[in-house]
Amino acid sequence: MNTDAFTARLAAARTRVDACLAHLFDARQASAIRLESAMRHGLLVGGKRLRPVLVYLAGRALGAADEALDAPAAAVELIHAYSLVHDDLPAMDDDDLRRGQPTVHRAYDEATAILAGDALQTLAFEVLARAEHPRLPALMLTLARAAGRDGMVGGQALDLAAVGGHPDVEALATMHAHKTGALIRAAVRMGALTAVDEHDPRVAALDAYAQALGLAFQIHDDILDVTGDTRTLGKASGADAARDKPTYPSLLGLEGARSRSQELVEEALAALDPLGEAGLPLAELARYMIERDH
Amino acid sequence: MNTDAFTARLAAARTRVDACLAHLFDARQASAIRLESAMRHGLLVGGKRLRPVLVYLAGRALGAADEALDAPAAAVELIHAYSLVHDDLPAMDDDDLRRGQPTVHRAYDEATAILAGDALQTLAFEVLARAEHPRLPALMLTLARAAGRDGMVGGQALDLAAVGGHPDVEALATMHAHKTGALIRAAVRMGALTAVDEHDPRVAALDAYAQALGLAFQIHDDILDVTGDTRTLGKASGADAARDKPTYPSLLGLEGARSRSQELVEEALAALDPLGEAGLPLAELARYMIERDH
Repeated sequence: MNTDAFTARLAAARTRVDACLAHLFDARQASAIRLESAMRHGLLVGGKRLRPVLVYLAGRALGAADEALDAPAAAVELIHAYSLVHDDLPAMDDDDLRRGQPTVHRAYDEATAILAGDALQTLAFEVLARAEHPRLPALMLTLARAAGRDGMVGGQALDLAAVGGHPDVEALATMHAHKTGALIRAAVRMGALTAVDEHDPRVAALDAYAQALGLAFQIHDDILDVTGDTRTLGKASGADAARDKPTYPSLLGLEGARSRSQELVEEALAALDPLGEAGLPLAELARYMIERDH
Repeated sequence: MNTDAFTARLAAARTRVDACLAHLFDARQASAIRLESAMRHGLLVGGKRLRPVLVYLAGRALGAADEALDAPAAAVELIHAYSLVHDDLPAMDDDDLRRGQPTVHRAYDEATAILAGDALQTLAFEVLARAEHPRLPALMLTLARAAGRDGMVGGQALDLAAVGGHPDVEALATMHAHKTGALIRAAVRMGALTAVDEHDPRVAALDAYAQALGLAFQIHDDILDVTGDTRTLGKASGADAARDKPTYPSLLGLEGARSRSQELVEEALAALDPLGEAGLPLAELARYMIERDH
């Protein structure tokens, strides 16, 4: 693995999506200034930009141009950002810190945070609609299904219901497949559908990759919550245990969780076989995902 | 005005959209049952269905078939319903009653209400994407722009900022043009765009109609808040004054507000001229809007 080239590619993709996101707030006469400022805060204060990176890498692997990938990449990050703003609310996870910054309801107020999250979600669909891609219906449907009741929001509801309960590993995997997995799969699929139509067999290969990667990512996040420190994570470590949230380390032990995430990365890499050399950047990303320390 | 025929047409359009909305919850294996139940509660407990009625009437006036109008009609009502669920939250208007029923956070809990609103918004875009209308980009963009920071959510943020302040009539009109006007205009435009493309001059005529109608509707709502009783309204009357919210009657007096809404309905009717006979149902709706008592 050529770490330097990979790191540079990752940084370039992040810079690219950050520029697209910032551009959504440029040269505008905002209707409601405080709302707009809260939206920027929720969207622009750093973050790994994993989902847009996946859009770019998956799309490029099948031959899409970066210009065509900008809108799906921005849209998927807008959905992710809105979900974090709402997740942090007092009635939900009640978090004060996110990415090392005050959460939106802390920096502004609760009503503004609710509205900012709402408007970030809407903006995701607006950005996608503006792109007028020939496969817009499939792109829209992929994003909406992953974000809604059968995807991310459904997973958040399952997560709320699980606090204080005692789910097994399978129930935990189902919750995560919805809560974080669905949007990660959507990112990869949207990248792929920007390049080719859904009947191309590489779309299914990439979906298998994304499914394994999504769960590996979540298990690694659970591990970091136990082993990381607050400064590196940019949020309070040990938060899951403090809240009596079920996690992979709590169910499988730390070593069990590590070996499960390793297995899943192997699955993700195997799924990339049909892509040949074109799949290498995605393979590097999968390995990076379980080696990162934040 | 043939009141009986009009009332029957109104009831039929409501029944039609109610069936479409109910169908979204039929024969499904829901991921998160409590979430889904809260979404239904927010969506299905009655309501005037003004926005979908406008989609049907505007679309039919330009020759669209009801089958093609179902998805935009459902989508616009889903956006409206999500906004009510979030508007009622303790951090926003803190309302206990809506349409004569407990609000979603009262019937369920606050976290579930936040998520149910989020998922109703997503479902709006999913329903529209599924329809695969040839003018999907324009339909999507119309809905997203009306719902987001430059439309409804922007208006809600302006409304929050105005509580306890002393806006003039112009500032109040700007707030309402965003908060309720934008989605009413979007409903009419989406109906129109289902039938014809945006260059058809009747689209602009219908937009002028919708703009006047939207403000007339809001002024009439403000009037009902003063003159109506809680039982007929299905929500607490006098709520605006109790909260020191600026309203048209508080700025123009009750008679001033009534004559302003009457003027606006005349404007709306005049805007329908280019449609000839095809515009009659929309004209009847405009008159009905300022005669209703709830």
